[in-house]
Order: sequence, then structure tokens, then C-alpha cells
Amino acid sequence: MARNIVISIDAMGGDSGPSAIVGGMVKSAQKNDEIRYIVHGDEAVLRPLVDKRRELDGIVEIRHADGVIDMTEKPARAMRNGRNSSMWAALQTVERGDATVAVSCGNTGALMAISMLRLRRAPGVDRPAIAVLWPSQGPARYNIVLDVGADIRADARDLVQYAIMGTEYARLGLELDRPRVGLLNVGTEEHKGRAALQEAADDLERLCQQPDCPFEYVGFVEGGDIGRGVVDVIVTDGFTGNVALKTAEGTARMIRTFLREAMEHTIFSRIGALFALTSLRRLQKRLDPRRVNGGVFLGLNGAVVKSHGSADATGVSAAIKLAFRLAKNGFTEQVAARVAAQSGKPHPAPAGQEG
Amino acid sequence: MARNIVISIDAMGGDSGPSAIVGGMVKSAQKNDEIRYIVHGDEAVLRPLVDKRRELDGIVEIRHADGVIDMTEKPARAMRNGRNSSMWAALQTVERGDATVAVSCGNTGALMAISMLRLRRAPGVDRPAIAVLWPSQGPARYNIVLDVGADIRADARDLVQYAIMGTEYARLGLELDRPRVGLLNVGTEEHKGRAALQEAADDLERLCQQPDCPFEYVGFVEGGDIGRGVVDVIVTDGFTGNVALKTAEGTARMIRTFLREAMEHTIFSRIGALFALTSLRRLQKRLDPRRVNGGVFLGLNGAVVKSHGSADATGVSAAIKLAFRLAKNGFTEQVAARVAAQSGKPHPAPAGQEG
Repeated sequence: MARNIVISIDAMGGDSGPSAIVGGMVKSAQKNDEIRYIVHGDEAVLRPLVDKRRELDGIVEIRHADGVIDMTEKPARAMRNGRNSSMWAALQTVERGDATVAVSCGNTGALMAISMLRLRRAPGVDRPAIAVLWPSQGPARYNIVLDVGADIRADARDLVQYAIMGTEYARLGLELDRPRVGLLNVGTEEHKGRAALQEAADDLERLCQQPDCPFEYVGFVEGGDIGRGVVDVIVTDGFTGNVALKTAEGTARMIRTFLREAMEHTIFSRIGALFALTSLRRLQKRLDPRRVNGGVFLGLNGAVVKSHGSADATGVSAAIKLAFRLAKNGFTEQVAARVAAQSGKPHPAPAGQEG
Repeated sequence: MARNIVISIDAMGGDSGPSAIVGGMVKSAQKNDEIRYIVHGDEAVLRPLVDKRRELDGIVEIRHADGVIDMTEKPARAMRNGRNSSMWAALQTVERGDATVAVSCGNTGALMAISMLRLRRAPGVDRPAIAVLWPSQGPARYNIVLDVGADIRADARDLVQYAIMGTEYARLGLELDRPRVGLLNVGTEEHKGRAALQEAADDLERLCQQPDCPFEYVGFVEGGDIGRGVVDVIVTDGFTGNVALKTAEGTARMIRTFLREAMEHTIFSRIGALFALTSLRRLQKRLDPRRVNGGVFLGLNGAVVKSHGSADATGVSAAIKLAFRLAKNGFTEQVAARVAAQSGKPHPAPAGQEG
């Protein structure tokens, strides 16, 4: 099969360095014979890493970039000063059409800001969003939550667009025919929550009654429902979504620590841990953030996959796998078509502003 | 010692019924010889439950109430129609000064609404808040998070008051001399987040520089910091706090399910679970929501402890223990004095409103 799906990679972002990223490229190349790479970063570092891996022979183009955007760099500064960076170059490669999708482990804020600048919002999209896969007890084993931090604000129209974009991601990423969409709120009763949520709920209800609606709107859901399998796509603003995501990650980390302490506490529990080793490893794998690696930026003219900053080769490979599926299935075009098809009402002008 | 701390109990709320609540009263009475109870509910049900427990002899006054507020009742309806309910009577007993603190396992929204109506806001408090104890890896083993759902809105002045009220709770509940306070945000950088957060951060910074400030302001924290032990009091609006709390509970529940599945998966892991049983139970105890039972309503003229709806006798007893400590230490008066002492700027009038 021809290697005709091109993925643009920022090899300098992330905490684990270029060797983890090249390691991930190798893992994915072994499993997938349709991928080619354009890699951006310091050629003096990348060339030897790539050359010594036989699996990458003839499928990698290295494009030298001098600069690296620091993990703590503020987005506004990255936009002003990042032109010579590997991240900028990786996104420009998608902008020019040399690749369909970009992957980076770098600074999320900077990646979003430069993505907005280079790829621009898809027609009709007001606020792009970051979507993540979330471990779930449902049959698909994962849910999709968005926005988890592209923008701290979202009005009713944005929330409806998140529902539409998240639906496309769920259809492709979770292979669901008609995903169930819920709006994150502080209660499931209809009267609860902020005005934007009330309005978005009405709009989703109405959209959902149209015969060709690609999702089922299930109503308001609460924080405890995110991983429960009662919905597939959870829609919220980027402030709430970011807090929820980081709270869940923190809770999982705390329980892992407590579990390890408990299993090391007595000689009996240590013996128990030995007996249960395989099963405990399976549990760890199920909760491993590297396996569900990759936030996706939705609503741009091009696909961008953000891998965890601390991703190792396994994590990078998971992000590349996701990027491949998005590219292969024409994800960007599908999202744009869905957003365009949604005949939403015009964006209400914010108070105190002409519009 | 005289039994002179009187606790007013709504015996009809909650999912486990009056027998769990009377069971919790017994547990607390066994451990504490300063408590007396005034119990509200159906006397025909309560009298036999109380009479058969020798530990409650002479320390319980039953006050009959016909009505029960349903767990799914809307707050507005509960306020209109709840006058004959056990919840209403429990709060009225605090209002009249017959008891210092009320405990209920009932409907949170209704309890908050009726508390506001009967006890009213303490002088100077704009929005009362619900605070919870949150398991933490820090030395105190718990943090305090507020607001987790009393009000979905909070402006800068409210957030500052939450910090002050949460500080008093931490000093009493966690026995900390000078609690560390953080504001929940989507990043720790100073420029991030909503305008109200920016303004509250400036105010807390300024307050914290005064010589008698009872807390240390540490700045913005993220969702992942809530259980990490870098702060003692996490301040946020009731919408975000509610989503964070329920997301954390949901994550813990999901991991418990996955862990049980993992330990039951093979014959080896079952043997392992047997060996590790005591340690796994210790872990369960550490994460057990019943042990940290009791959200506290802050900012009212009287203390109210909300126990989990599904609390059993152990959970109810934990809530009573907390209520006892609040009453014994004059918590309500302390919070009111602190709020009054804070010479904050006047509340800015919302846009479009005269003030």
C-alpha cells in the first residue's frame, strides 16, 4: 500500500524530548503502512535519531527549525516570537497542504494560539475547542469531553457547535453511529444552571428533533456522569471542562498513590500484590493516560492533535494513531460540513456591543 | 459532664431512613458525653427507634413533624410547601436558639433554600456557600473546597468571603493555624482566567499582606492541585465547585469498580486480594465518603451540616461529630466576626441595576 497519509510532527515540544517522539513514530510506522512523516526540529538532533531506525527508512522528511517554544511560554509571546519554532513549522505544513494533520507534545496554550493564527477557524465556527477521550464504564470504554480549555468562555451557540463537532469526533473516534450528547450542569433538572446552558439545551432539543440529526440529545448531565457511560459526548465551556479534566486526573493520581501505599503496607499485602500483579497491571493500563493520549483541536481548517507533554514513545504513538484516523477519514472536512449544515440562529451580540 | 451541646436533627431526610439516622445518633452518644438531641420527624416511627436504644435515654427530645421533603423536590416548591416538614422544623429549632446546629441527610437544594429563609445570611455575607472536606495527600489529610453548589454565581467579593469563611472552617475542622488559600483557575499563571478571579486574586493578595490576616494566599491552583496538599482551602464558584466535586466522586467510583474487576479477574488476583484484604480495606476507608461526611453551610446565622443522602449510621455519626465541633467552638459567631472585620470594598452593582 502506498504511504500517502502525511503527518506533520513537532519533534521539539514535550518534556521527554525528541527521542520519545521519534520512538513513537517508529512504533506507529511498524503497525501502519500508510503513514509518512514530515518532522520539524533541530536537524542535528533529529537526523541521527531517525537514521538509526530502519523502520523510518524513506518515510521521513526532516525540516530544520531553530526555535523551540518553552512549555511555560505565554501564548501571546509564542504567537509574536515563535515564527522560527518547530511548532510553528509543523502547523504551517498543514496550512500549506503538505500534511493533513499536525501532532505536538508542546505547550497547549501556544499550540492553540498558533493553530488559530495559521489554520484559522473553519467557516461558521466562533470558538474552536479542545476535545479529549475520557475513560468510561460505557460500552465504547471512552467518552468525549469538550471544551477542556481552548477558551474559558462559551455562549449557547458555541455549546451547540461543540455538540456538533464532538458528535463527529465520536462517530469517527469511538465508531458510534448516533452518539448521545449531554450538557454538563450542576443538576439534571431542567430549571438548573446558567442562562447559556438553558438556551443551548433548548437549541439542542430542537436540533435533535430534525430527522437527519447525527446525535441524540439526552439533556443535562452532572460531573459524576462523565465516566459513567450514560452519554458519549459531554459538552461544557473550557473553564469548567479544564477544571473537571484536571480534577479527574488528580483524583486518579491520588488513588494510585494510596493504592501503592496500601499494597506495600504489610508483608501480606506485598504477597497479595505479587499474586495480583497481572491484574493490577491491566488496571493500570486501563487508566493509563498515555493510552488515551491526544486532545484534538476542533473547528479549525486542519486537524491538530495535542499529545500529553509528558508522553513517552507509547503516548506519542497513540497520538499519531489518532492523527492518522482523522486524516484518513477526512475529519476536518466532515466537521466543517456539519457546522455549515446546522442552520443555527445568528450569534446574539454581547451586551454593550454593536452587532 | 453536662450534656449541654444541643444538636437539631432532621430524622426523615436521606435515602437510608430514620433508623440509619438514629443509629448515627447512638454512635455519637456513645463517644461523646456533651451531646443532646432534638429530633424532628414522624413520632410514631421515631419513638420506638429511640426508646429501644439505652444510649439515648434522657438525651433525646422528639418533636413531631408530619411532612417529609422528597429528595427530588425542587427548592422553590420546598420553600413554599415545606412548613410542616422535619427539615423545616430542624432549622427553625436553630433559628429559635433551642439548638446551635442542625444536621440533615435530605435534599441539598431544599436544605439550602430553607436555611436561607429561616436562618438568613449573616451580616455582610452576600452569598452563603457549601464547603466540603476533600481527601488530600497533604499532612492534614483533607482540604476544604467551597462553594460546591450553594450558588452557581460568585463575583470577586463573594470569592474573597469564601476564602475568609473557608479559613475559619479549616482552622476549626483541620486544626490549622494559618491555612493556605488558593483560587481555582485553569492555569497558575497570573494572567489567566475570568475577570472575577483576577479581581479576587488582587484583593486576597492585598488582604494577605495585613499583619493579622488569618490565611496565607498562595495564588491560583488547578483542578489537579485540589487533593495534592499544596493548599488547605480551595475557593471557587458553586458551579465549578459542584462539577469538580461530582467529577472527583465519579472518578473514584469508576476506579473502585475497575479495581474490583481487576482483583476478581483471575484465580491469582483473587488469592492476591485475599492476602491484601486488610490493606485494601484501609484504602477503602481512606476514600470512604462516609468518613468525611458533611458539607457545611457557611455564612448563615446558625450552622447547618448536610450529610450525604446515602449516609448510613457511620456517615450520620461523622456528620454529628462535625456538627458538635462547630457548636462547641462558636463557629457561627467566629465566621460572622471575621466577615465583619474584613473591610472589603463595597459590592459593585451588577450592570443594568441601580445601586
